Amino acid sequence: MATLRVPADVPAPSEDAEQLRWGTNEQLIIDILAHRNAAQRDSIRRTYHEAYGKDLLKSLDEELSSDFERAVVLFTLDPAERDAYLANESTKRFTSSNWIIMEIACTRSSHELFSVRKAYHARYKKSLEEDVAHHTKGDYRKLLVPLVSAFRYEGEEVNMRLAKSEAKILRDKISDKHYSDEEVIRIVTTRSKAQLNATLNHYNTAFGNPINKDLMADSDDEFLELLRAAIKCLTVPEKYFEKVLRKAINKLGTDEWALTRVVTTRAEVDMVRIKEEYQRRNSVTLEKAIAGDTSGDYEKMLLALIGAGDV
Amino acid sequence: MATLRVPADVPAPSEDAEQLRWGTNEQLIIDILAHRNAAQRDSIRRTYHEAYGKDLLKSLDEELSSDFERAVVLFTLDPAERDAYLANESTKRFTSSNWIIMEIACTRSSHELFSVRKAYHARYKKSLEEDVAHHTKGDYRKLLVPLVSAFRYEGEEVNMRLAKSEAKILRDKISDKHYSDEEVIRIVTTRSKAQLNATLNHYNTAFGNPINKDLMADSDDEFLELLRAAIKCLTVPEKYFEKVLRKAINKLGTDEWALTRVVTTRAEVDMVRIKEEYQRRNSVTLEKAIAGDTSGDYEKMLLALIGAGDV
Repeated sequence: MATLRVPADVPAPSEDAEQLRWGTNEQLIIDILAHRNAAQRDSIRRTYHEAYGKDLLKSLDEELSSDFERAVVLFTLDPAERDAYLANESTKRFTSSNWIIMEIACTRSSHELFSVRKAYHARYKKSLEEDVAHHTKGDYRKLLVPLVSAFRYEGEEVNMRLAKSEAKILRDKISDKHYSDEEVIRIVTTRSKAQLNATLNHYNTAFGNPINKDLMADSDDEFLELLRAAIKCLTVPEKYFEKVLRKAINKLGTDEWALTRVVTTRAEVDMVRIKEEYQRRNSVTLEKAIAGDTSGDYEKMLLALIGAGDV
Repeated sequence: MATLRVPADVPAPSEDAEQLRWGTNEQLIIDILAHRNAAQRDSIRRTYHEAYGKDLLKSLDEELSSDFERAVVLFTLDPAERDAYLANESTKRFTSSNWIIMEIACTRSSHELFSVRKAYHARYKKSLEEDVAHHTKGDYRKLLVPLVSAFRYEGEEVNMRLAKSEAKILRDKISDKHYSDEEVIRIVTTRSKAQLNATLNHYNTAFGNPINKDLMADSDDEFLELLRAAIKCLTVPEKYFEKVLRKAINKLGTDEWALTRVVTTRAEVDMVRIKEEYQRRNSVTLEKAIAGDTSGDYEKMLLALIGAGDV
């Protein structure tokens, strides 16, 4: 469930666009953009462009700065375009991150992921998978390319016989420490989330440990860490996001990029569950944690997106 | 260019459906179904279902037999559904064919291939890539899974610097006989067709041989044969299809499955170019070759689809 809160009476896109054009007031920007859904933000952006001949994001970019700007711009972007942008950043030399690519590939629905791939074509004149393949190698490439190329079946049907046989395959490969074996990769990257879940439940029951515990063997192995995170994203995404938030906030010097990314990409999706998970795990609300760790307009923007305060 | 010929005055779908319902005449079936485009056939099928409560394909299946039936049914299917069906057949034990999977992945446009993946979900409650991955292994899996999962960029933009560097990579790997190296697979499976074409042109110019000649080294190696065919499909599909037709027709005992597949899948796409290529290579028209090798209603159906005779 989303934390995004949209007022009962939403002004016309032209009205919002006009306010954004002439206001230099950060609170106004938050009041409007942090309280419109993706379709509404898209209308505002189009109306703005028609009326003033300029991309709203460019205008915001000129007026705002640092973390607040990044949060406003990221959230205002269409979700597929935003993911394409984040993924593209993640394949570049100085901002490369296999984690963000994995996160986008594993936590979006099949159709959402395909929309990201279309947005990537439109924006970068290349395919997402070709950039991911080009900028990775070895085990990372073996895992990430099929992850971003997947179009998983989304039905709830489960084949229990298959779940058992593939749990066994996973167990055998893990026992032999063949963590990047092609069968492990195949199962994790191609099966539907429902089927994978059944397989991992059976794994837990039959072999006495959750798979991610067996994958802890070598806690310094970065590939193994990424594989565990992918499994988490595919099965319990709210736990994955809770941990990203926890690490971002608890870090000496907050990791604003991670914080901004999770809040802007999940506010319209499952932030309610992530907040529950956060409170359960940290004995403090996410609102309090964010308020304690950020300040000014940036803080206000994040709190608005996670549903704190009035609309 | 398509060879499919649609009459100037097309009857209403309800009229076609009615004729198909009451006619047991094969010529009538050819006159209607071999002369309607995909959208029209779809309308007929839907109208038929609404009027008579039965799938037209089921009815045809009961009335017709053998090669003629397969040609009529395959052609009548919606193109994406037809490809999903052919791909699914190709992952089954007794009809498995890595070639057909490769052919579908490499000769369809990016959006067409994605439509096949959607049709596969709807029809088989699984993803195309999960079945392909499950039913292949080793080098075949390494090549085929990314091929069917690709969503290649389709613009004409070419990066010449990249073309040169990747031509060099291909050359080095081929010289070392590392034909299934992950870099070879990456380049062939992720680059846009325009980019790949530039790379292979540079390969030819810089190293004095077309890449497929260098990949002939071991002519008994089936994986190498598949890789060559994939490269052909991606760059000169009409030459690939000409060869499939030539082998199907010249075989002792025609290979009707291959003949039917190529004619039904290409009639609405590029059969004009395939026919030109066929005549150039065999000094006989494809019409003559098919007429000499097939007979009866099956012959009539194929000839109608490749544009021989009257509408």
